[in-house]
Amino acid sequence: MYRAWIFTVGTELVHGRVINTNAAYLGRRLTLLGFNVVGALTLIDDVDTVVRFLQAVLSEGPRLVVTTGGLGPAPDDVTLEAVAKAVGRKLALNEEAALMIKRKYEERGLPLTSERLKMAFMPEGALPIPNLVGIAPGCWLLHGSTVLISLPGVPKEMEVMWESWVEPRVRELGPRLHVAELEALVVGVHEASLVPIVKQLIKKRERLYVKTHPQSEGEKPAVLVYMMTSGSSMKEAVEALEEVYGELVEEIRSKLNIEPKRLR
Amino acid sequence: MYRAWIFTVGTELVHGRVINTNAAYLGRRLTLLGFNVVGALTLIDDVDTVVRFLQAVLSEGPRLVVTTGGLGPAPDDVTLEAVAKAVGRKLALNEEAALMIKRKYEERGLPLTSERLKMAFMPEGALPIPNLVGIAPGCWLLHGSTVLISLPGVPKEMEVMWESWVEPRVRELGPRLHVAELEALVVGVHEASLVPIVKQLIKKRERLYVKTHPQSEGEKPAVLVYMMTSGSSMKEAVEALEEVYGELVEEIRSKLNIEPKRLR
Repeated sequence: MYRAWIFTVGTELVHGRVINTNAAYLGRRLTLLGFNVVGALTLIDDVDTVVRFLQAVLSEGPRLVVTTGGLGPAPDDVTLEAVAKAVGRKLALNEEAALMIKRKYEERGLPLTSERLKMAFMPEGALPIPNLVGIAPGCWLLHGSTVLISLPGVPKEMEVMWESWVEPRVRELGPRLHVAELEALVVGVHEASLVPIVKQLIKKRERLYVKTHPQSEGEKPAVLVYMMTSGSSMKEAVEALEEVYGELVEEIRSKLNIEPKRLR
Repeated sequence: MYRAWIFTVGTELVHGRVINTNAAYLGRRLTLLGFNVVGALTLIDDVDTVVRFLQAVLSEGPRLVVTTGGLGPAPDDVTLEAVAKAVGRKLALNEEAALMIKRKYEERGLPLTSERLKMAFMPEGALPIPNLVGIAPGCWLLHGSTVLISLPGVPKEMEVMWESWVEPRVRELGPRLHVAELEALVVGVHEASLVPIVKQLIKKRERLYVKTHPQSEGEKPAVLVYMMTSGSSMKEAVEALEEVYGELVEEIRSKLNIEPKRLR
């Protein structure tokens, strides 16, 4: 339910020249909106590769697919061509997008060349998303029960578009859940010793997510415990999480004789 | 040829709580070894999801698949279970891996519980990779013409294992090419204006990769140009790249009347 996928398109990301902060940004925002984010696929700027993975993901009927990158004027900016192919639509000049781009270049006193107009070609039926920082518009496309959102790869452009235009609309598509989180540090224990306690904790609770992160397995072992749950109100989510945390602390005290340190 | 894929497994990465530096690290190392890295897939800790994407990638017969994460003692550490399923092998106790783990816990004066022994279960026929920093061994598995390498998700453990054990072996599997790179900044131009020049440049050269990164599309536009090529020796690669760069500078000078600034 409410599954979401992230596609970050860009050879520079795959080659590791640029750290992929866009995937983390979107994963975080979507998770806090209550979406079940299943994966973030980073792919080179190659139409066929992007089409193949988009189709694999779309065949599972997620609620949301968000792409970043590949909307610019360069020949290797191919995301919207891939989106069009993946959903079987034509890539055509979007009049509204063309107008957005034309205005931006007019303001800058620059001509609208064919490379610049390329940014207005979108899958038929798409809605362009205004770019308040840069030039290339984003793209909003409904395909069956999935909404496909394409945003630029430049983080500042992507984030402003997400916060000002996309997120308010995406919120409506989601489960409208509120998400509560906390973190605690357990010093003096190896991850394996916490496994039985965590197993018991998650057994009874469907919405609860717990992850243990070993901080060091050396002389002074420590494990960071992250917990997340959701509810129909923030109050409900926080109360549920506090109850679980109390149980966790009790178990760690009694079984391991350790006092966890609440971090947030 | 020599295609490589990266899988970074971990819900915390998909949820954006942790920035995915492992994907960047491996993408960079593999690219510099001359591999054609096609994608980096970040997936939640779910066996079926990981199996599905591993099988999709393996069906294309890449030379290399490297996974990180999901090797620990927690119930959601499921990477080797997924690898075994994806290649149709049994997950069984690997005696050599069990010995590695047993020694580590003996050194620390800790018992070898079932959670700890879980880290020694590997696909049949796998070779365990020593973990010099933490506990969970890595896993090296030949499947058809593909080598599947699984490493822990803790960056320090992963990087030490990569550098000390994996990379020397992976180098032998690769194209044994040398990679040269450079970057230049072109100030006073929009990305779209460089497109025709870059198009012409890459047309004649198969091995050349050029990417333009707009730094700012505002009042003072600037574009970072990244260039990469490979050769059978570093000298050959560097010479080929210098020749292309000379041509780029000449074109930008004569067509746009701008002097690019070489960054490296």
